[in-house]
Amino acid sequence: VTDAGRRPVREVRLCLLGFGQVARRWCEIVADREQQLAAQFGVRFLVTSVGTARHGSLHHWPGLTPVELLELAAGPARQLPATGRPGTELVAASGADVLVEATVAEPDGAPVATAHVREALARGLHVVTVNKGPIAWHYAELAELARHQGRQLRFEGVTMDGVPVFNLVEQCLPGVTVLAVGGVLNSTTNFVLDAMAQGEALDAALTRARLLGFVEADPEHDLAGLDAAAKLAVLANVLLDATITPADVPRVDVRTVTTDRAVAVRGAGRRLRIHSRARRAEGRVVTSCELVEVGPDDPSYGVDAMSSLVRLDTDLAGTIEVVERRGGVTQTAYAVLSDLLQIVGQER
Amino acid sequence: VTDAGRRPVREVRLCLLGFGQVARRWCEIVADREQQLAAQFGVRFLVTSVGTARHGSLHHWPGLTPVELLELAAGPARQLPATGRPGTELVAASGADVLVEATVAEPDGAPVATAHVREALARGLHVVTVNKGPIAWHYAELAELARHQGRQLRFEGVTMDGVPVFNLVEQCLPGVTVLAVGGVLNSTTNFVLDAMAQGEALDAALTRARLLGFVEADPEHDLAGLDAAAKLAVLANVLLDATITPADVPRVDVRTVTTDRAVAVRGAGRRLRIHSRARRAEGRVVTSCELVEVGPDDPSYGVDAMSSLVRLDTDLAGTIEVVERRGGVTQTAYAVLSDLLQIVGQER
Repeated sequence: VTDAGRRPVREVRLCLLGFGQVARRWCEIVADREQQLAAQFGVRFLVTSVGTARHGSLHHWPGLTPVELLELAAGPARQLPATGRPGTELVAASGADVLVEATVAEPDGAPVATAHVREALARGLHVVTVNKGPIAWHYAELAELARHQGRQLRFEGVTMDGVPVFNLVEQCLPGVTVLAVGGVLNSTTNFVLDAMAQGEALDAALTRARLLGFVEADPEHDLAGLDAAAKLAVLANVLLDATITPADVPRVDVRTVTTDRAVAVRGAGRRLRIHSRARRAEGRVVTSCELVEVGPDDPSYGVDAMSSLVRLDTDLAGTIEVVERRGGVTQTAYAVLSDLLQIVGQER
Repeated sequence: VTDAGRRPVREVRLCLLGFGQVARRWCEIVADREQQLAAQFGVRFLVTSVGTARHGSLHHWPGLTPVELLELAAGPARQLPATGRPGTELVAASGADVLVEATVAEPDGAPVATAHVREALARGLHVVTVNKGPIAWHYAELAELARHQGRQLRFEGVTMDGVPVFNLVEQCLPGVTVLAVGGVLNSTTNFVLDAMAQGEALDAALTRARLLGFVEADPEHDLAGLDAAAKLAVLANVLLDATITPADVPRVDVRTVTTDRAVAVRGAGRRLRIHSRARRAEGRVVTSCELVEVGPDDPSYGVDAMSSLVRLDTDLAGTIEVVERRGGVTQTAYAVLSDLLQIVGQER
């Protein structure tokens, strides 16, 4: 296959596990840019398998274009043609080059998503995951499996949606040692803390956050600090060579903050923020998570309900802060595309 | 040459033009990490030529190690053995693989540094420059020459020292279109504005900045807005495909700000900052530079005397802010190393 006779276009086949907002937006982005992707990167994406928890599954050879897949799944029920099959079976039968793991967050250990990733790597697929579970809980094992298989395991979307963190360190900071990493990792808690600072009760703030689309139906994961803990575990495991899990990371439950305190802090011209941090210390990695009162000079003061911040302390490149403003589904979908293009580029 | 028999180590020879703080720190960093660079990147750097404006020059074949060069230049006069020769002659005679251009800022057009870069590319050398002049004034021409010659022209250090901006977009945001770029590009002016907000007169602030090492002996370049204009021209030319020069970019002269105004703005809980920005608009690129009063929610509020901020607005990756905290010579020296390692990596 060639693109207008100019350069060869390689077909890259994908198995998509999870077909929610992120995967659908990814299809839209790729459909919109089919020509650009062929001309600039020499690649055309086809989907051979899709698996979902409640909306059925699909297998197609030699693969559907993203447009065809969106049309197929456009009905009111958003139901895919085949009955549900376990994700690992879909991976095994997919004939795909890359697994895109985009299933929902799971409890401790992320067993289902991790099984998907293991199966894919074992069968010689590359893996792109926007589900942070496998990386937070099993990074060392999965990275070793990927190395052994000569395949790539990429996960740029798990911490700051599509804003580069892992690729930034891997590709733009050669020779640098990251000494500490952290930041304001969960934006929902910023929303809650700022709403309470305005005098709102926690429940009212949550109701409003739901209406505005800032939180999931079940915000437990964000409020109890599990999301931030999982992100910090990923950052520590990948950038500091730690071997920790989210269970090893301290957490702040934002529900322990009272509206009275939040109002008082605001009265003093300050804001409540949750700071997560992991640092190298005498041959090991120490993690912390703290509720802090920050003044206007603190970089996290202006990090709001739709933003997050990652700070890297390094030996040679100093201190770098990366802020995502108004993150959302498009950015996470872009993270998948970005990781896929890294795989395509490094295979060339 | 091999490193302990493990992997072949490639010798990369450099011509250094400018041998001030940045080049010396680069030598120290590389000297400290000789083993790591050999083991991790398979590279060993040798310097065949050094040229300076007032401290003589040097030519050596097959090249000095960074340690040998530092020892040679360690005398109280910091004088290199040979008499001065024009940089272009040194480049031509160097036999080097890469020119590292680290000479000082020049007036309009940056003729001397640009001649160095042209000569190097024409003779088949790669170029790393931490001098922003050639990129601000002649990017399109030099980039085309580099493409034609199959050589790399790299300049990560010209905007935020070693903090990735250009490599970030090139390598970590594949397929993304940058729609606008800007930020707080000059840290000296932040120092002056904050000092005046405390009631200090401009001259007193400058004297203090000199004592603290925040400004050069001649701060004209920073105060008149030339440094910020050059940085914005680089960002626009490289990331927005503009073909502008610093002369096309509006400037703010911080000396037009009065202490009275700065104090009044502080009294209102705000700060003065200089915001530079370039954006795509109807097929062309529009630049602006404005003195603005920002409140604590503005990302530039906490960007202080040793910090700078670059903001990227993109189509797919949303809005990304990158902040350098406490930038300095080490970071700029790292930018040179980072660019050299990119060249080595892409040649492999």
